Amino acid sequence: MTKPDELLDVAYAEAVRGLAEGGVPIGAALFDADGTLLGSGHNRRVQNDDPSVHAETDAFRAAGRRRDYRETIMVTTLSPCWYCSGLVRQFGIGTVIIGESQTFTGGHDWLAEHGVNVVLLDDARCVDLMTTFIADRPDLWFEDIGWTGERA
Amino acid sequence: MTKPDELLDVAYAEAVRGLAEGGVPIGAALFDADGTLLGSGHNRRVQNDDPSVHAETDAFRAAGRRRDYRETIMVTTLSPCWYCSGLVRQFGIGTVIIGESQTFTGGHDWLAEHGVNVVLLDDARCVDLMTTFIADRPDLWFEDIGWTGERA
Repeated sequence: MTKPDELLDVAYAEAVRGLAEGGVPIGAALFDADGTLLGSGHNRRVQNDDPSVHAETDAFRAAGRRRDYRETIMVTTLSPCWYCSGLVRQFGIGTVIIGESQTFTGGHDWLAEHGVNVVLLDDARCVDLMTTFIADRPDLWFEDIGWTGERA
Repeated sequence: MTKPDELLDVAYAEAVRGLAEGGVPIGAALFDADGTLLGSGHNRRVQNDDPSVHAETDAFRAAGRRRDYRETIMVTTLSPCWYCSGLVRQFGIGTVIIGESQTFTGGHDWLAEHGVNVVLLDDARCVDLMTTFIADRPDLWFEDIGWTGERA
């Protein structure tokens, strides 16, 4: 398999693109088992005024319709939220590679419990990108994860 | 609160629209607490050639960006798959009204365990719609839920 760090580079480039567009800087990419890129994307809440497009859903859409995801690899710069974790579980994506989970932890442990191969990296670029973004735009970040300050 | 059956009518009409378009006949609608429609939609896998648009994500998108979903009600003709259940959990949608779960059961019990108010109906129209669709187009249905025949 292509090295996780090399696959992460594609997702990271998407996150940087999202930031340059004024959006939430999270990127993702879907690869097949031999490392061929199937689709990549980034969060488009701001750009498309669309709350349904997280990085993972954008990459999933870009990859088009498929009959079987078991051999695919979803790479994301940040631990996938419940929405994106649900996507991975429903479609049976076999492997998830995560840039970091320091700044946010979603459902990756749940995915591992349900048989997904989870590779959690600790990528300093990804941590820096989100740390700066959350400090600069907490309003936008909390909107993107539906955090109202009153739920766990 | 408006009666669940009346809210379901809106989602059912979306499902029928999806079927007429040649698509997967699942519809959904997001309402606020007093029954005002915020957005509705239906599965668009076939119509948009887009695997990321399930009924619930389409309704969620149509409702636009919001800061707080706790008082909203997601109505769907079919038990929400893990992808759509994850959406509900992540954004803290307070109530989910489900037309039926006979033909498919997704994550609604999981949502209830995590504090979502789940109202499960047993609507004959919804059951008939999906029963006929699954019999007519099993290939499309299995594609839409990522079922390969080898996973539970």
